[in-house]
Amino acid sequence: MTTHIPSAPRQAVIREVGLRDGLQSIATILPTSAKREWIQAAYAAGQREIEVGSFVPAKLLPQLADTAELVDFARSLPGLFVSVLVPNLRGAQNAIASGADLMLVPLSASHAHSLANLRKTPDEVVAEVARIRAERDAAGSRTLIEGGVGTAFGCTIQGHVDPEEVLRLMQALLDAGADRVSLADTVGYADPGMVRRLFERATALAGDRFWCGHFHDTRGLGLANVHAALEAGVTRFDACLAGIGGCPHAPGASGNVATEDLAYLLGSMGFDTGIDIGRLLALRERVAGWLTNETLHGTLWRAGLPKTFPASVADAAFRLRENHGR
Amino acid sequence: MTTHIPSAPRQAVIREVGLRDGLQSIATILPTSAKREWIQAAYAAGQREIEVGSFVPAKLLPQLADTAELVDFARSLPGLFVSVLVPNLRGAQNAIASGADLMLVPLSASHAHSLANLRKTPDEVVAEVARIRAERDAAGSRTLIEGGVGTAFGCTIQGHVDPEEVLRLMQALLDAGADRVSLADTVGYADPGMVRRLFERATALAGDRFWCGHFHDTRGLGLANVHAALEAGVTRFDACLAGIGGCPHAPGASGNVATEDLAYLLGSMGFDTGIDIGRLLALRERVAGWLTNETLHGTLWRAGLPKTFPASVADAAFRLRENHGR
Repeated sequence: MTTHIPSAPRQAVIREVGLRDGLQSIATILPTSAKREWIQAAYAAGQREIEVGSFVPAKLLPQLADTAELVDFARSLPGLFVSVLVPNLRGAQNAIASGADLMLVPLSASHAHSLANLRKTPDEVVAEVARIRAERDAAGSRTLIEGGVGTAFGCTIQGHVDPEEVLRLMQALLDAGADRVSLADTVGYADPGMVRRLFERATALAGDRFWCGHFHDTRGLGLANVHAALEAGVTRFDACLAGIGGCPHAPGASGNVATEDLAYLLGSMGFDTGIDIGRLLALRERVAGWLTNETLHGTLWRAGLPKTFPASVADAAFRLRENHGR
Repeated sequence: MTTHIPSAPRQAVIREVGLRDGLQSIATILPTSAKREWIQAAYAAGQREIEVGSFVPAKLLPQLADTAELVDFARSLPGLFVSVLVPNLRGAQNAIASGADLMLVPLSASHAHSLANLRKTPDEVVAEVARIRAERDAAGSRTLIEGGVGTAFGCTIQGHVDPEEVLRLMQALLDAGADRVSLADTVGYADPGMVRRLFERATALAGDRFWCGHFHDTRGLGLANVHAALEAGVTRFDACLAGIGGCPHAPGASGNVATEDLAYLLGSMGFDTGIDIGRLLALRERVAGWLTNETLHGTLWRAGLPKTFPASVADAAFRLRENHGR
C-alpha cells in the first residue's frame, strides 16, 4: 500500500455507532431530542453513515426504544446512510418496516460468547440470516443485510477464537444471503498483526461484500489495529464519538475507537472522510455535557488538530459532500 | 514484514523515559527515594533500559537535580543500560563523569523550535555533538552518544518540518560522531504514513546506528505510529509509564506512549521485550499514588491483559533475562 498523500484523496468512511454501541453500554439514557440533535450535528459535520439504534425489545434495552423514530428522522437527511442493529427476524421485520438502509445482524464467532449473549449458536444465527434474507426479499425491501462477525479475535469467556472458524462463519453468512460482512474485535483482544492477517483473508474471501472493521480500544490498540486494516485494504470503520461504550467486563474501560481520533488518523494520512473535525470536536463537547456521569475517551480533543493538518483536504471534501444527493 | 508470531521471538526494547521526559514536564517533584523505588521496580519487571534523568542546571529543572545519584544507583543493577539526557558539553562532562551508558543530545529539526527551546540553531547543536565526541574520546569514556532528532514530523511553532532537513541533520549528527541517532515526534504531529516513510529512509541512512523511535500520544496515534515504525524495521522505542509527560502547549494532553500499553502491543505481536506486564501494572499503580495531582494516561491498566495474551512468551523471556549479566 502506498501511504503517500495522493492529489485525488482516497475515500474512507466512518460509520458512527455511538448512538447504538455507545449508548447501549452506558447507564445514562439520552432523550430522543438529544439523539436527534446528535444525528443532525454529526450530519452537519459531514458524517454520512450512522447506526441510529437497535430493534430489540424495549424492556431489554430501554435506552434504544426510540429506534424507529430515529430511523425516520435520519432518513429525512439527504444522503445519510442509516444503519440499525437487529438481533433476529423480529428485529429485521421492524428494520424493514422502518426503511433503514442497512440492518446489521451480529454473530459471535466465539461459541461460548454467542450462547451467553445471543442464546444461539453461531450457526443458528446464520440460519436466522437466511430467514431474514427471505423475509427482506419477499417484502421487496432494499434494506441491506450486514452479517457482523464479532469476537473475531478472541473473547472474554472462551479466550481463543480460531481464525478458521471466523472465516467459515463469514462464508456461511455470505452463503445465507448477507449482502455485506464485517469483522469486529468486540472485546479489544486484537493486535495489528492479527488484524492484518485476518483482514487480508477476509477481504480475499468476501471481496466487495466485505463492509467494515469494528475495533474497540479496550487496551489502547484501537487505532494501531485500524492502521493494520487499512494496510489490508479496508477503508470503512465503525467508531463512537468520545469512544463511549466501554466493556461490560472491565468497568471504565474504553469502548469503540473514538470517531474524532479516527477521523484525524484518516485525514492526516490523506484519506477523504468528508468530516469536518472542528465541528466533530464541537459536537463531542455537547455530547460530553449530556454524559457527565460517564467515562469518556479519545485523545485529540485535549490537544486539538496540529498546525500541519491538511484542513484543505477535509474542507474541500466536506463542501463536495454537501452538494451531493443520496 | 511478517507479523506471524515466530517460535523464537524477535527482540524489542522499550527504554523507560518516564523519569526524565515524564517528570520534567509535570509539576510534582518526586523525591529521590521514590525514583529509586521506581527504577528498582521497573528493573524487577524486566526493563533493561532506563533514562534516569538529565544533566541540566538544577535551577532550570529542579525535579531532575538528583540525576548523578540516580545514575549511580541504576548502574548498581546488573545488566541495566542507563541513559541520561544532556543539552550541551557541560552536561556531557557530567554524564561522562557519572559513568552513564548513553547520553542523549536532543536536536530540534524545527529551527524555530530549536531557537525557542535550546537557544541554538540545529547546526549549532551538531557542532556541540562534535565537541562532546572529542571530549568523550579524550576522556577514554565508553559513554555512547545518541543524537536525537526531535520535532521530526512538525512543530507547534513553525508547523511543517521538511523531511529532507530531518535526514540532513541526522547525517550531520552521524558525521559529527554520534554513535546512535533517533527520531522523535516531540509534539504528536506524526501519522503512520509519515512514520513509515521517514523511518524507512532514516534506517537506510543510519543502518545499525539508528537507535530508536520516540512517539508522543498527543493526538491518539502513538501506538499506530509505533506499528508503522515496526514495519520499517525499528524495534526500539521510548515510552513513559502511565504516559506521563504531557505537552506544554496543550494542558492535560497525553505525553509519551504509555510503557504498559506499548509492552502489551509488542508482547501480543510476539516480540520479546523481557517485560512482565503484570509487574509493570503494579508499578503503575504505585507511581499513580505518587502523582495524584497529575493527569495520567494509558489504556491497558483499566481492562488488564486479555485471556489470550501469550504470557508464556513474556514469562520465559523474563526468566531468561534474570539470569543474564550485563
